Amino acid sequence: VVVRPSTTEQVSRILALAQEHRIPVTTRGAGTGLSGGCIPTEESLLLSTERMKRIIEIDSENHVAVVEAGVTLFELDEATAAHGLRYPIQPGEASASLGGNIATNAGGMRAVKHGVTRHQVLGLEAVLPGGEVIQCGGKFVKVSSGYDLTQLIIGSEGTLCVVTKATLKLVPRMTQRLTLLAPFENAEDITRAVPKVVHSGVSPSLVEYLDWVGMGGAVRRGGADLSIPEEMKQKAKAYLLVVLEGNDSNRVQEDGESLGELLLGENALDVFFLSESEASKIIEGREGAFWSGKEAGMADQVDVVVPRASLSKYVESVQGIAQAHQTFITFTGHAGDGNIHLGIFQNDPKVFSDVMGEIYDLATKMGGMVSAEHGIGRAKKKYYQKLEDPVRLALMRKIKAAFDPENIMNPGVVFDGQTSA
Amino acid sequence: VVVRPSTTEQVSRILALAQEHRIPVTTRGAGTGLSGGCIPTEESLLLSTERMKRIIEIDSENHVAVVEAGVTLFELDEATAAHGLRYPIQPGEASASLGGNIATNAGGMRAVKHGVTRHQVLGLEAVLPGGEVIQCGGKFVKVSSGYDLTQLIIGSEGTLCVVTKATLKLVPRMTQRLTLLAPFENAEDITRAVPKVVHSGVSPSLVEYLDWVGMGGAVRRGGADLSIPEEMKQKAKAYLLVVLEGNDSNRVQEDGESLGELLLGENALDVFFLSESEASKIIEGREGAFWSGKEAGMADQVDVVVPRASLSKYVESVQGIAQAHQTFITFTGHAGDGNIHLGIFQNDPKVFSDVMGEIYDLATKMGGMVSAEHGIGRAKKKYYQKLEDPVRLALMRKIKAAFDPENIMNPGVVFDGQTSA
Repeated sequence: VVVRPSTTEQVSRILALAQEHRIPVTTRGAGTGLSGGCIPTEESLLLSTERMKRIIEIDSENHVAVVEAGVTLFELDEATAAHGLRYPIQPGEASASLGGNIATNAGGMRAVKHGVTRHQVLGLEAVLPGGEVIQCGGKFVKVSSGYDLTQLIIGSEGTLCVVTKATLKLVPRMTQRLTLLAPFENAEDITRAVPKVVHSGVSPSLVEYLDWVGMGGAVRRGGADLSIPEEMKQKAKAYLLVVLEGNDSNRVQEDGESLGELLLGENALDVFFLSESEASKIIEGREGAFWSGKEAGMADQVDVVVPRASLSKYVESVQGIAQAHQTFITFTGHAGDGNIHLGIFQNDPKVFSDVMGEIYDLATKMGGMVSAEHGIGRAKKKYYQKLEDPVRLALMRKIKAAFDPENIMNPGVVFDGQTSA
Repeated sequence: VVVRPSTTEQVSRILALAQEHRIPVTTRGAGTGLSGGCIPTEESLLLSTERMKRIIEIDSENHVAVVEAGVTLFELDEATAAHGLRYPIQPGEASASLGGNIATNAGGMRAVKHGVTRHQVLGLEAVLPGGEVIQCGGKFVKVSSGYDLTQLIIGSEGTLCVVTKATLKLVPRMTQRLTLLAPFENAEDITRAVPKVVHSGVSPSLVEYLDWVGMGGAVRRGGADLSIPEEMKQKAKAYLLVVLEGNDSNRVQEDGESLGELLLGENALDVFFLSESEASKIIEGREGAFWSGKEAGMADQVDVVVPRASLSKYVESVQGIAQAHQTFITFTGHAGDGNIHLGIFQNDPKVFSDVMGEIYDLATKMGGMVSAEHGIGRAKKKYYQKLEDPVRLALMRKIKAAFDPENIMNPGVVFDGQTSA
């Protein structure tokens, strides 16, 4: 059964009934998630937020937007542009809903400057399983008045409550953009350069890593025409893409030049300043990396995170795993955040599962986590539950029980079962 | 009884015993809090973190510090300076411990640029009431792998667990600073100017509001010698203090000049560029506003938050409350965040309590909260519990029970009692 409420009141009545009859509820926004968090089971009610589309307010004095959960990133971007503002979180998929972004604490390319969803959500309206409505946070950054329920709900993948509205922090929309592309012969050099780029003081808004396969995919998908000499392309194992933004074109240009020198000093083969149109094509192509991979037969994409400075060691070790299991693995990712996307090409389900297990295990051992931005959902649950500390897992189950005593909210997503508190 | 453990292991054994014998535990860092969150009851064990002073690591590749809970802001600042880095959260009191800052989600003057404690804490080690030790988060910003226990623990004022270690995000330490001081005849003009200053694109690291009393106190306390003409001082009802930072002195100077013009356009009586030494004195004086007030007979200081653009309306309404109750109220605050400190001068306990109640009620009605950065503790509990939504309060009690089934962690702080989950 699919229900499509258009108001918080309707959501409240649905959840009251669901709790009374113990019917599991899976909330679904635009359905663009990559971990299966919005896929219901057969017994579940699917609560779609697709009709909750109101942009309630763009408050240009407080630089805040208030939106319903079903509003998409694209719709919000259009609405904020009219005010010279922007919601700075940009996961690859602009058709994603804000509610879905909140459920998975979506990250994306601009996290190196603006953090992730949790850093931009100031408040929430949510409906609890019994139908009670709560308001959390508000139009302010600073607060120390009881537990931060907003932050607890963000990233909970629909397992605690249904988010109906969000108060979002906006930032001024910059007018100038400069994009640098640097090919490297050696992937390690890139990961060594990244901390220096991030902390150079120029505050880049995007620091992306693409291996040669990922770069090829991004170029093809975006239809870009990079004038990199063929000989250099042959040499280049990986690329670093850096975007600078600002309102003063001279400053952005100056920063770009000093960053270019920094990269050459870090063994970049060259540094290309891309035209605005080529830059957009490459970034679009990069955003579609998941789909390029899928078209090419990729089994799945992993979004592990490790400490930024450990990226090169992680990439090297994963290459060892790939060789040992005769599996092809591509690397693209948000290098500035230590968040790397591995494209796993392996059709044998047993080998695939082993490879995934080893990749996650390695990330965890290196001080990282299973998912940086896609969430655990159903797809990564078996790996996550195995690696997660049982004490933390028990605590999370008790927190879930505090919100959802009948275990009706997206059961089986993130973790299995539930102990009573 | 006071216990002073020096290791996580010792904290664990203390909490295991405390749970077994149902002894309440209050954790205390440097004891600089302003809401009484670290004041034990007579039956309580006081767990002091004063011996947990190790700065375990300054990781200059990942720009992260790992510290024990008893390390003070001052100690951390000295240690990071050697690496050209900084922990950017600066509440007024440098002798405060990081553990205490985490307990109250401390804010301070630089929140307008860097957010508050919760935005800079990447991970925690914490001991649960039964003695179990959990590690949350790590050396990364992006994560979507289960509930964010780090964020839930931050701001919980010792009511859920004992924080023993923290992983903190550091930022590059800037070399150039420029401080502007603008007197205004009209306090409303300041609050109207603030959103424009914050969003002008120059990204100030400090935007402080001081009324003439607060300014007088800051000047006296810091020993500053402002060369503002006497006639202007007589006119000035309030002052705006703005600090810009960067690494390029020309840019900082340019930004300062354009900001100065913006302020003149917003009816500033004049704009003064302070020398580095006068700026330090004023900021130090401002940081000590609480103590200046106390010396002058202030009954208490309030740290409400309202949406930034509502500050002038709030200040005006509070002036009405002050008049109605014949109470003297001063205004200083973090204008860039909508966080205002009201100094309440009223010796009659009944009138004082009424004034406090009205001030908090008004802030809540205007979309704000009781405490922005000091926490609820014991001192604001009666006001907070009255204004907090009972549904949210019930949910918080259940969350507390999930962590602390025997209710031994700082009972009576933030809220009273506990229902079982």
